[in-house]
Amino acid sequence: MKLIEQAKTLRVAQRTMGAAPGEQRTAALHALADVLDERSAEILAANAADVAAARAAGVAAPLQARLQLSAAKLQTLRQGLSSLARQEDPVGRVLRKTRLDDGLVLSEVTSPLGVLLIIFESRPDAVIQIGGLGLRTGNGLLLKGGKEAARSNSALIACLHAALERSGLPSEVVVNVPDRAGVAALLELDEHIDLVIPRGSGAMVASIQASTRIPVLGHAEGICHLYLDAAADPEMATRIAIDGKCDYPSACNATETLLVHRDFLPQLGGVGAALRAKGVELRADGPALAALPGAIPCSERDGDTEYGDLILAVRTVDDLNAAIDWIHAHGSGHTESIVTADKSVAAQFLDRVDSASVFHNASTRFADGYRYGLGAEVGISTGRIHARGPVGADGLLTTRWLLRGQGQCAGDYGPGGRSYLHEAVLTD
Amino acid sequence: MKLIEQAKTLRVAQRTMGAAPGEQRTAALHALADVLDERSAEILAANAADVAAARAAGVAAPLQARLQLSAAKLQTLRQGLSSLARQEDPVGRVLRKTRLDDGLVLSEVTSPLGVLLIIFESRPDAVIQIGGLGLRTGNGLLLKGGKEAARSNSALIACLHAALERSGLPSEVVVNVPDRAGVAALLELDEHIDLVIPRGSGAMVASIQASTRIPVLGHAEGICHLYLDAAADPEMATRIAIDGKCDYPSACNATETLLVHRDFLPQLGGVGAALRAKGVELRADGPALAALPGAIPCSERDGDTEYGDLILAVRTVDDLNAAIDWIHAHGSGHTESIVTADKSVAAQFLDRVDSASVFHNASTRFADGYRYGLGAEVGISTGRIHARGPVGADGLLTTRWLLRGQGQCAGDYGPGGRSYLHEAVLTD
Repeated sequence: MKLIEQAKTLRVAQRTMGAAPGEQRTAALHALADVLDERSAEILAANAADVAAARAAGVAAPLQARLQLSAAKLQTLRQGLSSLARQEDPVGRVLRKTRLDDGLVLSEVTSPLGVLLIIFESRPDAVIQIGGLGLRTGNGLLLKGGKEAARSNSALIACLHAALERSGLPSEVVVNVPDRAGVAALLELDEHIDLVIPRGSGAMVASIQASTRIPVLGHAEGICHLYLDAAADPEMATRIAIDGKCDYPSACNATETLLVHRDFLPQLGGVGAALRAKGVELRADGPALAALPGAIPCSERDGDTEYGDLILAVRTVDDLNAAIDWIHAHGSGHTESIVTADKSVAAQFLDRVDSASVFHNASTRFADGYRYGLGAEVGISTGRIHARGPVGADGLLTTRWLLRGQGQCAGDYGPGGRSYLHEAVLTD
Repeated sequence: MKLIEQAKTLRVAQRTMGAAPGEQRTAALHALADVLDERSAEILAANAADVAAARAAGVAAPLQARLQLSAAKLQTLRQGLSSLARQEDPVGRVLRKTRLDDGLVLSEVTSPLGVLLIIFESRPDAVIQIGGLGLRTGNGLLLKGGKEAARSNSALIACLHAALERSGLPSEVVVNVPDRAGVAALLELDEHIDLVIPRGSGAMVASIQASTRIPVLGHAEGICHLYLDAAADPEMATRIAIDGKCDYPSACNATETLLVHRDFLPQLGGVGAALRAKGVELRADGPALAALPGAIPCSERDGDTEYGDLILAVRTVDDLNAAIDWIHAHGSGHTESIVTADKSVAAQFLDRVDSASVFHNASTRFADGYRYGLGAEVGISTGRIHARGPVGADGLLTTRWLLRGQGQCAGDYGPGGRSYLHEAVLTD
């Protein structure tokens, strides 16, 4: 199978690109912006064919909208590439430097992670966004886009190849994965692929996690909690609950469960009324139900469900401990927030909740790489290994340890011999 | 099975310990040093029984020596615990702090990784070294030691439990894994165990990597290269080759293959004679064989083998490119070193070799957590995810993102609304 051979030899080309000077990868980013401009007519024609086919197949309107490219969207992509080109090269940064002895200096430097398999849905823009990030970080990419965007993706991947060639880098570092059978075959190659990044539905992520030994960066579920403490300001609680649930209900960082301290119950009615006015269905347990006109009784599954919709589970707890226990038992480790004016309670919540993101008096919707200021967002990880929470370009890097000596031997050190200095060396 | 239940509930106890104040974990380290002192007689009695059984079973002398504890070894362990207790708490360190907006500040802080399964061989000292590191980093531990040290390990794990109880921490955070069947069952629990750290033979590590979905920190092989460039100083080349091969031949960072630039061949004889004088068997390819009196011809497997013994493969290459290609094709990504007086060649080697540790004019034997100044060494990773090369306590940590607000909502930001500041806030 040609794809498997491409994947197996990808690391060789990736090492060539990864070791190339940062300026060469910067040049490739500029070249990509140029190629997008030069080929805009053929890209938009390929995209129009995808959109027409989707329309003919009766694909839902929102998906058609995500599929559609335009001159304006291409312009935005070109601006994104210029912004990446202006960024400091993330490869070769010195993270720490230690003088082990006179004339024996150790540096830990950032390096490309290697070969990434990235699976994304429908939006063809992602090819350029991910491709640009791959150029910036020096990683090899196996790209699998949505099948409804096949023509657009092929045209855009051809642009990536052209930009690589134009800047003297091997075009083999970007490989188009044509279908799901290709993905299934690639997921077996744990020696040749370093990380899988699935960007899509929780079901898709869970199925990939279950079917590969390659590390997977992502989150299968986002069951985020908002906890209204006894000392929550009702007006703030209302605003944060509405933003968390209604700002973008299908996002992974949307609030799915409202935990309510029993002493807040007398004020819960106002929060509930405001949510219902925004069209939110409230599914409450006994004590909350009594405080929430118009709510319906929750079932066993409410509180363990990522609705992705205007539905909110409401659960009553006796105290902070019960809220934290509930979150650890029912959450997905994504994002949890507390509303309280009590600083000591807030500090305990921030110290003790074991999730990727933990907030005080802020909406769960802030859990996002752009909002965190990470520049690009690779994904949001609920795993605990390598990267956790919103992941930026740093998540696509590893490190190498470089030691520069003058002929030193390990046997020279120890009892009766030389001693290590282990002095930190300042880096700029 | 009781062990499985203990592992499944370990995270609850671990979260309690992980969120406890650093001083409490420091107190537990001091308590452990005290308990080791108080119980030294019973620890040494349990150990004497292990040693006697090993002797009766005809266990090899070096393994008997590794098994044996003594008052002096216990004293060294107590000093190590005091040193850990004096270290700055690694949990809760602020790695970065960003002002997203006025009154909206994001911090990335270190947190315990969670639940670790650590498998080690023969040396019972490891129980206390790993246990101390677990206390310092707030991680839960499933400990599987060598079966020949079972009595010693039980006595030492009882000391860990006593120290935890004495300092008010849950003793359930340390679990003794009695046998291999227990390990096999635990390797299925990818939802409950975050990381497996096997410390032992390459075969053991490879077998564990092949049989679990839990991330494994370690290295199955250490096929380290020393490359003698055309511009290598012969005297330095000789010293570094001898240290790399002979200082501790069974270590993973020992040099296994000597790559020789063809222009260095006229000077290779002196290096070879010095190695042979130290008892090293040289297995050389054609050109090197002609330069090395007493060497034997290499076979196909030499150059792909971790000897762990006084044997060295010697291969001739045409230039730096060929040396780097050889390393990427035959190495294990552990540690490679170049000897050269040519700074430009050295810089290329350091830039381009894609291994965890890459050295110039220094012995491969320096690849080690203690030598790198990392304090404790958890292991050496040849993986590219999470941690690479020698791993210290940092490898047992993850991070959490804490956001402190005043009622902000994500919907307040964007076109027509507020803008993010994304200002770095200095931390002390």
